[in-house]
Amino acid sequence: MAENIYKTDGTIDSFENPRPGREYEIEFVAPEFTSVCPMTGLPDFGTLTITYVPGARCIELRSFKYYLFAFRDRGIFYEDLVNQVLDDIVAAIAPRSAMVTGEFNARGGITARVTASFHGD
Amino acid sequence: MAENIYKTDGTIDSFENPRPGREYEIEFVAPEFTSVCPMTGLPDFGTLTITYVPGARCIELRSFKYYLFAFRDRGIFYEDLVNQVLDDIVAAIAPRSAMVTGEFNARGGITARVTASFHGD
Amino acid sequence: MAENIYKTDGTIDSFENPRPGREYEIEFVAPEFTSVCPMTGLPDFGTLTITYVPGARCIELRSFKYYLFAFRDRGIFYEDLVNQVLDDIVAAIAPRSAMVTGEFNARGGITARVTASFHGD
Amino acid sequence: MAENIYKTDGTIDSFENPRPGREYEIEFVAPEFTSVCPMTGLPDFGTLTITYVPGARCIELRSFKYYLFAFRDRGIFYEDLVNQVLDDIVAAIAPRSAMVTGEFNARGGITARVTASFHGD
Amino acid sequence: MAENIYKTDGTIDSFENPRPGREYEIEFVAPEFTSVCPMTGLPDFGTLTITYVPGARCIELRSFKYYLFAFRDRGIFYEDLVNQVLDDIVAAIAPRSAMVTGEFNARGGITARVTASFHGD
Amino acid sequence: MAENIYKTDGTIDSFENPRPGREYEIEFVAPEFTSVCPMTGLPDFGTLTITYVPGARCIELRSFKYYLFAFRDRGIFYEDLVNQVLDDIVAAIAPRSAMVTGEFNARGGITARVTASFHGD
Amino acid sequence: MAENIYKTDGTIDSFENPRPGREYEIEFVAPEFTSVCPMTGLPDFGTLTITYVPGARCIELRSFKYYLFAFRDRGIFYEDLVNQVLDDIVAAIAPRSAMVTGEFNARGGITARVTASFHGD
Amino acid sequence: MAENIYKTDGTIDSFENPRPGREYEIEFVAPEFTSVCPMTGLPDFGTLTITYVPGARCIELRSFKYYLFAFRDRGIFYEDLVNQVLDDIVAAIAPRSAMVTGEFNARGGITARVTASFHGD
Amino acid sequence: MAENIYKTDGTIDSFENPRPGREYEIEFVAPEFTSVCPMTGLPDFGTLTITYVPGARCIELRSFKYYLFAFRDRGIFYEDLVNQVLDDIVAAIAPRSAMVTGEFNARGGITARVTASFHGD
Amino acid sequence: MAENIYKTDGTIDSFENPRPGREYEIEFVAPEFTSVCPMTGLPDFGTLTITYVPGARCIELRSFKYYLFAFRDRGIFYEDLVNQVLDDIVAAIAPRSAMVTGEFNARGGITARVTASFHGD
Repeated sequence: MAENIYKTDGTIDSFENPRPGREYEIEFVAPEFTSVCPMTGLPDFGTLTITYVPGARCIELRSFKYYLFAFRDRGIFYEDLVNQVLDDIVAAIAPRSAMVTGEFNARGGITARVTASFHGD
Repeated sequence: MAENIYKTDGTIDSFENPRPGREYEIEFVAPEFTSVCPMTGLPDFGTLTITYVPGARCIELRSFKYYLFAFRDRGIFYEDLVNQVLDDIVAAIAPRSAMVTGEFNARGGITARVTASFHGD
Repeated sequence: MAENIYKTDGTIDSFENPRPGREYEIEFVAPEFTSVCPMTGLPDFGTLTITYVPGARCIELRSFKYYLFAFRDRGIFYEDLVNQVLDDIVAAIAPRSAMVTGEFNARGGITARVTASFHGD
Repeated sequence: MAENIYKTDGTIDSFENPRPGREYEIEFVAPEFTSVCPMTGLPDFGTLTITYVPGARCIELRSFKYYLFAFRDRGIFYEDLVNQVLDDIVAAIAPRSAMVTGEFNARGGITARVTASFHGD
Repeated sequence: MAENIYKTDGTIDSFENPRPGREYEIEFVAPEFTSVCPMTGLPDFGTLTITYVPGARCIELRSFKYYLFAFRDRGIFYEDLVNQVLDDIVAAIAPRSAMVTGEFNARGGITARVTASFHGD
Repeated sequence: MAENIYKTDGTIDSFENPRPGREYEIEFVAPEFTSVCPMTGLPDFGTLTITYVPGARCIELRSFKYYLFAFRDRGIFYEDLVNQVLDDIVAAIAPRSAMVTGEFNARGGITARVTASFHGD
Repeated sequence: MAENIYKTDGTIDSFENPRPGREYEIEFVAPEFTSVCPMTGLPDFGTLTITYVPGARCIELRSFKYYLFAFRDRGIFYEDLVNQVLDDIVAAIAPRSAMVTGEFNARGGITARVTASFHGD
Repeated sequence: MAENIYKTDGTIDSFENPRPGREYEIEFVAPEFTSVCPMTGLPDFGTLTITYVPGARCIELRSFKYYLFAFRDRGIFYEDLVNQVLDDIVAAIAPRSAMVTGEFNARGGITARVTASFHGD
Repeated sequence: MAENIYKTDGTIDSFENPRPGREYEIEFVAPEFTSVCPMTGLPDFGTLTITYVPGARCIELRSFKYYLFAFRDRGIFYEDLVNQVLDDIVAAIAPRSAMVTGEFNARGGITARVTASFHGD
Repeated sequence: MAENIYKTDGTIDSFENPRPGREYEIEFVAPEFTSVCPMTGLPDFGTLTITYVPGARCIELRSFKYYLFAFRDRGIFYEDLVNQVLDDIVAAIAPRSAMVTGEFNARGGITARVTASFHGD
């Protein structure tokens, strides 16, 4: 099994924005996101949605998939997770704006959704 | 049967907001809410949705579940209930803003929805 | 058969708003509404949705159901009906605001929806 | 208002089967059925589905609509109603076979469905 | 306007079955079917579904579309229509078996479905 | 067949607005609209939605149905059709505002939607 | 609060079958069923479906609702519950046949469904 | 562009059935199937569903994807296509049984579905 | 993180069937199943459905959840996985019958479903 | 096969706007869009939505279909594609405003959506 395909350093690859002069929007939806509850060790499942307006660079989709895989074995709370992904995206591509939403399947009969946004200068 | 697991004192546990500097949103949806009609003694069923922007503290999800369980044996009108949950949340975590919506299944062929909001200073 | 349970005087019962100091919203959806077409005598079917922000008083749900039953034997056009229900609600509880929507099932292959609103001073 | 358009004698009009030599199936679905609960006087709402294989005659759709309208003011239990419609169809057109299903909207949170069938010789 | 593109002679074009040795099934669904009510002159709308196991020949889809267009200006009852289409298919391609279903949109609040089948020797 | 029931003169009947003093909205949805492509002679199918705020007069629903039937045999492009219906409504009832949307089923795998609006003075 | 409205003795009221000579089917669906997990004391939620062919007697719907309410405070496993309801129905009305299905909302991300049947002699 | 990744020789790769002693079922659904209409040169789109009970060998999913890609540039009728895929599967893995269904998006307002089956000795 | 909560020995806990004399059915649906592709090391996601008629013992739901968690880090093909779960269930509780279905999300645009059954003597 | 029906020069045919004096909106939805990934040579599938307010000219729907077909054999990234279609539309018809959205089916479990807009002077 090829566990080393996961990107565990929190970096996100990027490529040059083909239309830097136009303000346009890109959205990725990852419905197969899974991480681990840091209190119980049980797996969490949910959907991550990333929406951003690129600046000089765009998120490279394939490497972003490996970035998300790295959370598979990581214990992290919902609130931390969504803010962490937003921070990593801002650090990687300095977008004009970005929003990350995590919708997590019901635990104890209650679903949770966390949304955090970044607006550049 | 472990009836003492319900939190009947109306308090909601909280934890420190991991990103107090960022204005972000958290939503819980509890589709298995049940209370009792104070006039007929019959059970009411519905969905409670809580959306808030945390200040210094966040709602602890697991204890919130027990807080909601306490309504299982309690006679309360829809309008009271939604405003009470909003008040308890504001008292517990002093959010930047909060909204509580209760959608109640049809009684006599009519469904009801009550929504109350709080906006901090 | 207890036909006298219908409220044919157009009055709507109310109770004291438990939170008169907070501006919050209440919505009733009645998908089993039926009246009679005044031209053909044929029954009309549809869904009435009432949304309002209470002032000093709230609509009592059970009596409102009987208020709606009274249209079962009444010939009335869609446009009249929706405006009449709005007027009756305003007369009964003097809400801060109110909106009534009637969505009527297809007759001759065409569905109709009428929406009327009231905004207090 | 033209209340006398309802057929209150329980008869169903018919026309000659255009293909008496072929065994084929006809189904009517009436989602706007309403009658009255004989205990409470409250209206019941639901969907009636009639499926039959015609013999010498077919049900005339327009008159069947008026036949169903006659239940609007009639107090009758679900179990009686479905069996009564089936009996009236059998009496009117002597079909090769027939099935009547009534699906009634929730009362007290419980929906009911009653199905009765007739198979000719 | 090219009204002469409609096939008004009730014939259906066919082509040679590419696999006459295998018993396999073909289904066409035409959700844009329209004809005219012979009593009122009003248009009827619905969906025709044709399912058959071909013998020596298959229905040519494009000409079948024109065959169905010819009902656009034709007054015909539901029961006649479905049996007529089945007869025309059997006459045109002598299938091993065939079934025609017509589902017609609600008229007077009641939908109708007629199904007729043919089984070859 | 009663083809003369169609209104081919483009006029729309109206009745006096029962509440001329209140600004309220009426919407008709006609999912069984059909016209003819002027280039190919083939039928087009789609849904017309009319939303308006009445002035002194309202659209009479039954006659509006016959108005729409008149397009059944008429060759007209989508863009013309939607603007024509809007113009006819404005001419007939001088509404405070009106919007017409036509959503047309896929032709060549592409669906089309055209929306035109009128705002009175 | 009127807790004594619940029927805690496991009996189900019945009435005389109006058509004992015909074999027909009745189905009740109760989507607001709730009981308590006997291990954790936490509430369980789900949908109970009861289908039966009556013999001499039918289940009285209103009393059946109170019979189901009695499980609200009772600790019972899914497998026991479904078999218990089936046994209580058989004891109460001796049906020709009966089936009970319980579909329980996800616990730990897994939903459960239990189905038990009775066939009379 | 790597056009040579498509398998144009009609062969399907396989692997050894891990449980040859058990009769079990495997289903692949390919909703992104596209080929070309041999008469018009226009692209066709649809969903292919393959269901089979393996014998000594199973279809290798990844190579099967490339097998389907090869139809992207190929002109073929629906009836031919479904029978061809079935023949290729039978030739490749000699299954105990197999079924291929092609559901093709509407052309001229009519959808088509073709289903062919193979049953081994 | 509590990784030792996973059951990696392939055993499934059970409890005594409360109604061994009745043939009834139990179904578990686990929509959050994940394992690893043994060829690429990439995660697979899907839904496992287990349906069985218990003999002397029933599957304990909570321990079954931990049994499924153990596949989270395990490389296994779809065909192996479904047959393995079936074998483990048969070994653990000797059911009268059992069926396991795995529906796996699209890889390369193709979804897969594998179903295996066991029937006791 | 008629491959030369594709328009490979990136031009889009237009016709004169029949209502140049009115600001109205036209939307095309093409759910059968396919292009090729320039890195892997594998096909991409998705839905293109074009919304615009015409100026002097409108997009001719039939030729636009051929314009989109030309991407079938072309390797292009999502971000390039959406911006390219927008540029070609602006060049062809100089609309008052236009928006192009591409929603691409999941690759590696992640869907992507790109939206670009143009606003004329």
